[in-house]
Amino acid sequence: MPSSAEKLFVVIMAGGSGTRFWPLSRRRRPKQLLPFAAGRSLLRATVERVAPMVPWSRIVVVTVAEVAQAVAAELPELPADNLLVEPVGRDTAACVGAVAWRLAVERPGALMAVLPSDHVIGDAASLRRTLAAGAAAAFAHGALVTLGVRPTRPETGFGYLELGAEVAPIAGQAVRRVARFIEKPDREQAEAFVASGNHLWNAGMFVWAVTAIEQAIRTHLPELAAGLDGLVAAGRGAAERLYPELPRVSIDFGVMEKASNVLALPVEFAWSDIGSWSGLAEVLGGEDGVRIGDIQALDCDGAILVSDGPLVAAIGVPDVVVVATRDAVLVVPKSQAQRVRALVDRLRALGRDDVL
Amino acid sequence: MPSSAEKLFVVIMAGGSGTRFWPLSRRRRPKQLLPFAAGRSLLRATVERVAPMVPWSRIVVVTVAEVAQAVAAELPELPADNLLVEPVGRDTAACVGAVAWRLAVERPGALMAVLPSDHVIGDAASLRRTLAAGAAAAFAHGALVTLGVRPTRPETGFGYLELGAEVAPIAGQAVRRVARFIEKPDREQAEAFVASGNHLWNAGMFVWAVTAIEQAIRTHLPELAAGLDGLVAAGRGAAERLYPELPRVSIDFGVMEKASNVLALPVEFAWSDIGSWSGLAEVLGGEDGVRIGDIQALDCDGAILVSDGPLVAAIGVPDVVVVATRDAVLVVPKSQAQRVRALVDRLRALGRDDVL
Repeated sequence: MPSSAEKLFVVIMAGGSGTRFWPLSRRRRPKQLLPFAAGRSLLRATVERVAPMVPWSRIVVVTVAEVAQAVAAELPELPADNLLVEPVGRDTAACVGAVAWRLAVERPGALMAVLPSDHVIGDAASLRRTLAAGAAAAFAHGALVTLGVRPTRPETGFGYLELGAEVAPIAGQAVRRVARFIEKPDREQAEAFVASGNHLWNAGMFVWAVTAIEQAIRTHLPELAAGLDGLVAAGRGAAERLYPELPRVSIDFGVMEKASNVLALPVEFAWSDIGSWSGLAEVLGGEDGVRIGDIQALDCDGAILVSDGPLVAAIGVPDVVVVATRDAVLVVPKSQAQRVRALVDRLRALGRDDVL
Repeated sequence: MPSSAEKLFVVIMAGGSGTRFWPLSRRRRPKQLLPFAAGRSLLRATVERVAPMVPWSRIVVVTVAEVAQAVAAELPELPADNLLVEPVGRDTAACVGAVAWRLAVERPGALMAVLPSDHVIGDAASLRRTLAAGAAAAFAHGALVTLGVRPTRPETGFGYLELGAEVAPIAGQAVRRVARFIEKPDREQAEAFVASGNHLWNAGMFVWAVTAIEQAIRTHLPELAAGLDGLVAAGRGAAERLYPELPRVSIDFGVMEKASNVLALPVEFAWSDIGSWSGLAEVLGGEDGVRIGDIQALDCDGAILVSDGPLVAAIGVPDVVVVATRDAVLVVPKSQAQRVRALVDRLRALGRDDVL
């Protein structure tokens, strides 16, 4: 009988289409395709991180039609059958469910690790050890395993895990029950969580048996389960019509917050979801700030200067983000980088599809 | 006998190749060709300002080989023979001298008004009245006439005229002798000049008889006069070889500061030489600052946002200059706009001819 690691599939969710990295990110070039991993895309780096652990035949990438071609081009080694293309994104529960329903038929007994494609992780070997321990824990306990990151600041943009009782360590990796999931807290709560030492950031990385997540979806999201049953019954040709009708809900909110058999593995590696241009500085920046592309800077220590074409010349602006492409340029103080969303909303309202 | 106005030629100096408006200005697209005059170029606006006063046949434009094609394209009405192309720029004395030497042969008795091509002037009719009065004064007194601008701030980047005795007004226009020219003063001097009420900015606009300026050049710049004599004797074909050997000196320093028969006409119209991106705000800016091209701004009142192609999206940067072209983008605080020169020097040292 194969060990849990040999039954492990790694499922990479690459359907995002964030607007926070505009103008570098566009409809057809979302964040996970941006070269924020030492010149490689975040997606490519995500796959390469797990490739030493699982063969390409056990890597599954889920994406949406709009970016499918770019995703496939980024991963030429991926078997065509392992790229699942959603006609439209229906949030993470549908995405996870679609893969689970398929594996349940094709590879009964499989385990799934689910990873976002647009995060930065410091130590790939540590990630692989954690995923292996997660697979063992999911297998041994029939549990839904979630990876949790030790919070370093009272971030109000993340969900948190409140830890419960300890479970026997697996492969030297601490394992805890999850007492509850907490949606994005307010500042005061977040500060208490950081102080408590008993809360982790929900990093959106999971490990479970296909049977366990299928059962959990049937229990907590029966409408989604019925939709997925219908999809399987109708065959792949019907996805275009049926997929958009699946309920739109996250796996965190739809399943993890409601399930009882949830375990947490605190991770030891550095992690960031780089949620905005200013977040990029923490991940990629040296003392000089961030420099990507053709940049000339005078007195701009700390500035985030990015180009995928034009020369960017910056003088005396240490606190700004400048992002330049052939057809659009963004200038914003680092402290206001979140406002890029509002700007993109405005461009959408103005019908500026030429730059979106 | 024709009046002084009917003998007047307007000579427009369009050979400049400043770097202060980089990245919009380039080697082949200097400041005078930039669309800073309500969508028209400064050169075009300069010509259109005097066109109601003199026919195109009496407008002469002097430029350098590198930008000659662009200048000609900007002024299709200009007779080809009225575009004088210097093989290389040799400063303003050579430029003025070359035109004077030619008119002395072709149009003896002519008067010349000499105008820069890259300044902004508020009231074209007032300029024309001043030039007509200047022509009359130059004709009546055999003088070198310079137009002076009432200083509005202790600018240390300009030369100043110190006024002497009053001369009888001409056509309602006050006329003063010039006691002396002062090169760029220090701050203290400049403040004293503004306070005195007896000093004007030297705006680089002149009127004189061809015979008067020819004589002044023969007296004060004999080496230049000899060079120009040689050019005339050798014929136009020799310019490529001989012109670069002319001495490099400004008409202000080489002639005006040394001549005794200099008169000043204080001008009444608004004037700016827009010496930098921040200078542009004073000339073109409303309360919102400057907006040229495809701009989207949130909370950027006062910013100078210019594009000749890409969309520029600026958020929360009220004090900056952003200039975007297809291949280069500049970001600098308005207060440091002068540093663009240092940046261009660096690009030159780096051999970045692709963006210069």
